[in-house]
Amino acid sequence: MTPVVDAADKTEQALFGLVGDRVVISVDAMGGDRGPAAVVAGLVLALSDNVLIAFVLHGDEAVLNPLVAAQPQLSGRCVVRHAPRAVTMQDKPSQVMRNGTDTSMWSCVDSVKTGEATVAVSCGNTGALMAISMLRLRKLPGVNRPAIACLWPSRNAGGFNVMLDVGADVKAEPEDLLQFAMMGASYARNGLNLPRPRVGLLNVGTEETKGRQELKAAFERMPAVAAVGDFEFVGFVEGGDIPGDRVDVIVTDGFTGNVALKTGEGTAKLISDFMREAFGGSLLSKLGALLALGSLRRLQKRMDPRRVNGGVFLGLNGTVVKSHGSADALGVAAAIKLAFDLAKSGFNERLAARVASAGLAGLDAGEQGEVS
Amino acid sequence: MTPVVDAADKTEQALFGLVGDRVVISVDAMGGDRGPAAVVAGLVLALSDNVLIAFVLHGDEAVLNPLVAAQPQLSGRCVVRHAPRAVTMQDKPSQVMRNGTDTSMWSCVDSVKTGEATVAVSCGNTGALMAISMLRLRKLPGVNRPAIACLWPSRNAGGFNVMLDVGADVKAEPEDLLQFAMMGASYARNGLNLPRPRVGLLNVGTEETKGRQELKAAFERMPAVAAVGDFEFVGFVEGGDIPGDRVDVIVTDGFTGNVALKTGEGTAKLISDFMREAFGGSLLSKLGALLALGSLRRLQKRMDPRRVNGGVFLGLNGTVVKSHGSADALGVAAAIKLAFDLAKSGFNERLAARVASAGLAGLDAGEQGEVS
Repeated sequence: MTPVVDAADKTEQALFGLVGDRVVISVDAMGGDRGPAAVVAGLVLALSDNVLIAFVLHGDEAVLNPLVAAQPQLSGRCVVRHAPRAVTMQDKPSQVMRNGTDTSMWSCVDSVKTGEATVAVSCGNTGALMAISMLRLRKLPGVNRPAIACLWPSRNAGGFNVMLDVGADVKAEPEDLLQFAMMGASYARNGLNLPRPRVGLLNVGTEETKGRQELKAAFERMPAVAAVGDFEFVGFVEGGDIPGDRVDVIVTDGFTGNVALKTGEGTAKLISDFMREAFGGSLLSKLGALLALGSLRRLQKRMDPRRVNGGVFLGLNGTVVKSHGSADALGVAAAIKLAFDLAKSGFNERLAARVASAGLAGLDAGEQGEVS
Repeated sequence: MTPVVDAADKTEQALFGLVGDRVVISVDAMGGDRGPAAVVAGLVLALSDNVLIAFVLHGDEAVLNPLVAAQPQLSGRCVVRHAPRAVTMQDKPSQVMRNGTDTSMWSCVDSVKTGEATVAVSCGNTGALMAISMLRLRKLPGVNRPAIACLWPSRNAGGFNVMLDVGADVKAEPEDLLQFAMMGASYARNGLNLPRPRVGLLNVGTEETKGRQELKAAFERMPAVAAVGDFEFVGFVEGGDIPGDRVDVIVTDGFTGNVALKTGEGTAKLISDFMREAFGGSLLSKLGALLALGSLRRLQKRMDPRRVNGGVFLGLNGTVVKSHGSADALGVAAAIKLAFDLAKSGFNERLAARVASAGLAGLDAGEQGEVS
């Protein structure tokens, strides 16, 4: 009888055969607006910075094999896993949950479930990715509502703030907001290297009496959670604080967070377009722009949303990074870099330990171990 | 017996004695962060563009009289109305409603109530201004929840979109969202000169099935309101559409709108600061910035929030313009310019007629008159 060698075994042989400490990242090649070629180009870009990454790439092998074969840098570092179908941006999450087992997205998340990869990355349909992730990875014990956290360019020394939830769900109860604070602080500690992050609750004013009922309820209970979660609660913050330096972590419900994220991106895009028009205006300003080119490029780099591409799903048994649907190679590479950093720091294990230690189900302060 | 000449009579004599078609604007001199000097400077700036404005200025006459006397342009165009107290940013709206009759803000709104002024302008405490405005001017017949509308720099030909509510209340029922659409369309028609404004409902996606329950309910009933209100309903829009050209009017609840507004402002401020740093970076980039100065100034003007300063309270028996608390002379002048434009167009009468004609209480389509 021939011994059965399953897919995961083969992957392990291929990726870990030579180097034992590579971080394996599972990538959905089919989800993005720009197609699998942009994703494969992103893998190459990410590898150029980092030799410790290996990939399991999910999608139609007839399309992927030639793309991967054309990139010598991927040789020995990328296994293609065939999935005949792709989730589209129009697919409903509920349908994908019922009939999506043969999609590249499902296969991508399953690589984390089986343990062959540490983190999953997809540019696809956010709702479907969250639905599959919830179904296959399940919520961390003690977590009620998972959240999507994003990085936001800010005035802080590290250059970024964390905001969550930016769209996992359209609402949040006070208990959810408390958990978001705990999870966001843990992400900032591990992802941004901030030992004691400052956390703010997003509201329409900073006075204690302002805002919606669920915010007031969360406000009252937050100091107790901050003591257990080892973060500093600064109280209510406003929209202007999202890119500011008053806090490191902004906590809000997924509806408000999603609108704020897209409003910020839209505003940045508008200004960047206006700038381009302004500098194209006259010969003098064109010459000026030429002289200022280095500074303009640094500015563009600082604000480029592709460089901070990647929302992270928090509160699951495994890490999933959601890249922009429109991500190009640079955007995909940024999402992979984020996935690598989180995998290296053992972020999800730390988050799980923190949640367990805090006894978040009842938010009662349990014994604290050596977790962060 | 000496005939009693009351304050309003004296104002009328002073302001209308020579020119009959001046628009009288009531201004709260005491509310802003920069004090009455910035407000008076703003009046002068507004006058330089427009000879048809006259002011009733409310506040401490011991402070205001010398400030006004120092500006010859204000001679014969500005009456000071004494009010011993000022509403602070810390005052609670409920307290101001009970004990605020002797404040400059109360006096400012009352000038509209008595009819001596057409529009009121204040840089003060938004919550208190809304509370006083509701109490003194009362809601328009048929309006359930008044709203604050703001102008947002956009890609549209006119340069601006309208968004509401940006903070009158923290929530909105489906009926309120329908009324916001009607009022916002009327504002866009009269303020931005758009005969048939395109209106969108702010959501986290554009699919009909997405978002919160109250949004889905409003979505279903909106086409009927659009037919009566003479606007085009384009469906759900996202945060990125707020500065975009897909719609002219963005409808949302006051919590989401306020967060989006402040997020957009904060993002614009961050980029502007980064730009300043970038251009200060090297000798070459400084020289470049110098050459590009004209273009940079045009850009700055295009994005300057002070030039679009002024939220308008919609749905009351009278128009109230809320300026930024931190408004300087340029900001105050912009708010006055907006107040003047609305007064000249007879906006509030048109809005009232539109609401009455639409029978908005039940949102049943009544007979439509010649209103806009």
